[in-house]
Amino acid sequence: MLFKNIDILDENFDYIKNCHIGIDGEKIDYIGKELPDKNYGRVYNGTGKLLMPGLVNAHSHVPMTLLRGYAENMKLQDWLTKRIFPFEAKMTAEDIYNGSMLGFAEMVRFGIVSTTDMYFMDEYIAKAAMDAQIKCNLSIGTTSSGDKGYYDLPVFEENNSLIKNYHNKENGRIKIDLSLHAEYTSNEKTVSQLAEFAQKSNVRMHIHLSETKQENEQCKQRHNMTPAKYFYTNGIFNVPTTAAHCIWLEDEDYDILKENNVTAACCPVSNLKLASGFCNAPKLYNKGINVALGTDGAASNNNLNIFEDLKIFALIYKASFNDPTVITPKQAIMSATKNGAISQGRDDCGAIKVGNKSDIIVLDIDKPWMTPNHNILNNIVYSAQGSDVVFTMVDGRVLYEDGEYYSIDIEKAIYNANMSAKFILSKL
Amino acid sequence: MLFKNIDILDENFDYIKNCHIGIDGEKIDYIGKELPDKNYGRVYNGTGKLLMPGLVNAHSHVPMTLLRGYAENMKLQDWLTKRIFPFEAKMTAEDIYNGSMLGFAEMVRFGIVSTTDMYFMDEYIAKAAMDAQIKCNLSIGTTSSGDKGYYDLPVFEENNSLIKNYHNKENGRIKIDLSLHAEYTSNEKTVSQLAEFAQKSNVRMHIHLSETKQENEQCKQRHNMTPAKYFYTNGIFNVPTTAAHCIWLEDEDYDILKENNVTAACCPVSNLKLASGFCNAPKLYNKGINVALGTDGAASNNNLNIFEDLKIFALIYKASFNDPTVITPKQAIMSATKNGAISQGRDDCGAIKVGNKSDIIVLDIDKPWMTPNHNILNNIVYSAQGSDVVFTMVDGRVLYEDGEYYSIDIEKAIYNANMSAKFILSKL
Repeated sequence: MLFKNIDILDENFDYIKNCHIGIDGEKIDYIGKELPDKNYGRVYNGTGKLLMPGLVNAHSHVPMTLLRGYAENMKLQDWLTKRIFPFEAKMTAEDIYNGSMLGFAEMVRFGIVSTTDMYFMDEYIAKAAMDAQIKCNLSIGTTSSGDKGYYDLPVFEENNSLIKNYHNKENGRIKIDLSLHAEYTSNEKTVSQLAEFAQKSNVRMHIHLSETKQENEQCKQRHNMTPAKYFYTNGIFNVPTTAAHCIWLEDEDYDILKENNVTAACCPVSNLKLASGFCNAPKLYNKGINVALGTDGAASNNNLNIFEDLKIFALIYKASFNDPTVITPKQAIMSATKNGAISQGRDDCGAIKVGNKSDIIVLDIDKPWMTPNHNILNNIVYSAQGSDVVFTMVDGRVLYEDGEYYSIDIEKAIYNANMSAKFILSKL
Repeated sequence: MLFKNIDILDENFDYIKNCHIGIDGEKIDYIGKELPDKNYGRVYNGTGKLLMPGLVNAHSHVPMTLLRGYAENMKLQDWLTKRIFPFEAKMTAEDIYNGSMLGFAEMVRFGIVSTTDMYFMDEYIAKAAMDAQIKCNLSIGTTSSGDKGYYDLPVFEENNSLIKNYHNKENGRIKIDLSLHAEYTSNEKTVSQLAEFAQKSNVRMHIHLSETKQENEQCKQRHNMTPAKYFYTNGIFNVPTTAAHCIWLEDEDYDILKENNVTAACCPVSNLKLASGFCNAPKLYNKGINVALGTDGAASNNNLNIFEDLKIFALIYKASFNDPTVITPKQAIMSATKNGAISQGRDDCGAIKVGNKSDIIVLDIDKPWMTPNHNILNNIVYSAQGSDVVFTMVDGRVLYEDGEYYSIDIEKAIYNANMSAKFILSKL
């Protein structure tokens, strides 16, 4: 496939007008101002369009689409115990698949090509991801309690089986990570066992870190150290780790994250909705930490349109740190693309570069709200709509184009998700 | 026109499934569960759709679309003096018209049926509004200095001429308000003269109020009172007033606003972008003040998709006041519709009610991100996209439907705005 006369964000996320991009199989094969000699097959007319890397969602709970709008304007504890946990306890394998498929539909429609997920019954998320042909780093949120819809330790069998059956499958699109749900849902033995298991299995780690003030305070009471220090001490950061939220980090924690190459996955919308607080994203950047961007689950967002997260991410730290210069549009866009790919261990993804996987999206920039084009990076972050995505490609395959979903039966996905939600409600 | 089998938000903003709505001329003529006997002409199939009041933008500077993305990540003073004011100083009447038409295109596409605007050369905004067939309360941002792109006093001739030629014209769609730009851009004589003029002319008032901390502090130094107290003392609130921002109000100010029926027009996105602060919207509601919602200008937003403002409005006070229960979806939706109409003096607009003006929008709710429908109010506020608007009607006229603009030549509007922006830049 050849994208002809299209504006792009290049590998440095600079704006280059009027390029030609050749796709060969799963890879970006050519980027240039001159038309290539090679015949790439289908020609895409890029006039009025922008080609950029597909977006990477660094923290999701994709089957939670079934809970969208179900629990609102509630305190965190009520939200969890009265609404989320009882609903989740009734979810079957089929519901997990249906909720995932609905979530993947939203993702590809809004330009997400890959997501780092934490949930349970991951086999059925994997099956949905394989069908949707999207990229996923999947993990089971491990807890010690086993009473919150997450799996108990030492149920390592399920992880072993996931790794054996799904890790690096589908041309590497599916990866299995391990996940320690959070400090407050696990004991020290679980944490250190899971850390060892991750090292032995050579897989990545995905955790919730310092999401609430209470979490930090209670951890310090229990262990006399912050959650970051506690995870570090127990070996969690011995493998590359994605830590969601990172709101209540203390000074030393930033150094721990930096020294251990931990990615901070910021989830600004979820943090606002649950009143968790404002993470210090400017400080994360200043410390040189890899900052990525996540939607979190649909129950606390309530959609998977990461363009909204991108805008809010670029905005809220200005007000909360009283400085309109913090978080540049380029920083924000890189966090929503390349930095997310790095956090997933996908170094050949997340940027428009010859040899990289062809995970790309096309935006229609010939829209009133994208006019005038004084600065395309500003327009992408502050003005663009998720609905401006007119084309989503993963590994060189078209998943979405101009209203058509090519890997998902969209009517069926909506119907099945509605049926699952109704059926779960009928059991509550 | 008859909307058949359509879900609606009724006049109390409750969700009623499967209604029939008859439109006769400019008014809502029938709402019921039974099909009406009367023949309303065209039948609209409402299956999978939601009909709700059109959105009202309570604070805009619509020609500023031309500055979209032009000035980013800058401190307020640099933003104004290095970018905004020099650009505005080069704008011609044609540019004002072109910028307005682009803005109105965005508005009708994203479901805004009416806007309360403050700018300059308002005659050309009025012409664009008449062509676009949108509703507008227009005002010239009056200052005493005359050196910031706003008009000087005692240039009351222009306001007189605007009132004479445009006030209540176009079936009342166009209204002329007076506007005092802000405390810090005017002297006391200007303020009291404008207040008298407004009373004499029997028109409404539109001001910026307590947008920045500095504004409040300097006002107290100059006048020994807060901006709200100062405006009250000088008679500004003798006519119904819309006060944009209201971030740094002090305790007594809330009572002044309440007692004088001043509408607080919250602009959450602009406040984040310029790091102005977080207005205490929960307190405004608790005090019984009419709270409306505004986009502000595209230079500080950077689009006019008020669905984004609606979501962020419902979210940010949760985090900034550390309470996930503040601002209910119904409060937020009413602020974006009925309360805005009230602030404009349009009591027969902003709600789906027999006898009201037919200012309505239709959302396609058969979308992945609107599934499942546990609670439509939650879905509208937290999940819906501006692009889910498939139909926008003002005074019974269709302005937008399924990608077609019926009062605006969209290609021409985009082209002209681009030309205006280029031409202004060439003069800088």
